[in-house]
Amino acid sequence: MEIKNLFAAVAEVFEVLLETPNLRLERIVSDGQATPPGKWLDQENDEWVLLLRGNAGLRFADESGIRVMRPGASLRIPAHLRHRVEWTEHGAKTIWLALHSGDGEKGGAKDR
Amino acid sequence: MEIKNLFAAVAEVFEVLLETPNLRLERIVSDGQATPPGKWLDQENDEWVLLLRGNAGLRFADESGIRVMRPGASLRIPAHLRHRVEWTEHGAKTIWLALHSGDGEKGGAKDR
Repeated sequence: MEIKNLFAAVAEVFEVLLETPNLRLERIVSDGQATPPGKWLDQENDEWVLLLRGNAGLRFADESGIRVMRPGASLRIPAHLRHRVEWTEHGAKTIWLALHSGDGEKGGAKDR
Repeated sequence: MEIKNLFAAVAEVFEVLLETPNLRLERIVSDGQATPPGKWLDQENDEWVLLLRGNAGLRFADESGIRVMRPGASLRIPAHLRHRVEWTEHGAKTIWLALHSGDGEKGGAKDR
């Protein structure tokens, strides 16, 4: 049973800005979305994220607290470090830049 | 004979945020700097830039005008497209994110 917030946009918007065999640069626009309860993101490749606008909370499996990301906040998430987007601001655009650095194979946040 | 603006910081500040064999992500802080008169930048690899803060003017060898970059402006500069930073704002930080996508060799804006 999952609470659905009707003030939030239906889905996050993903735009691939650059893609080569070795990297993928994405712009992600969130509006209230979060990783579904109980789910963790576990990625094949390192990811570097920069929060450009808005606010978000990230949780990492090896940490007890939530890291609050504000504009300008950037973070490198090592491959296979389980994490979740705990929350993003409701009713406002939270804009992320996400750089997935691969090893030549397709990888990254396929399941985000 | 080059005019030197004493209000500007002495040099741009480069910080490498990420480096792998296939990419280099840099944060660049400019304060009034520009590419020296008559000089063009000519890079081995594609570069993607995002202006995070401040203002700058870019000139491309195949264009007559100057492109004004404001916060949020991003641009992919293909390898070997000659370009110059015509100006950056004086007395304020202009913050760039620059992603050099290589082919496994060292490359990028070595001479910037």
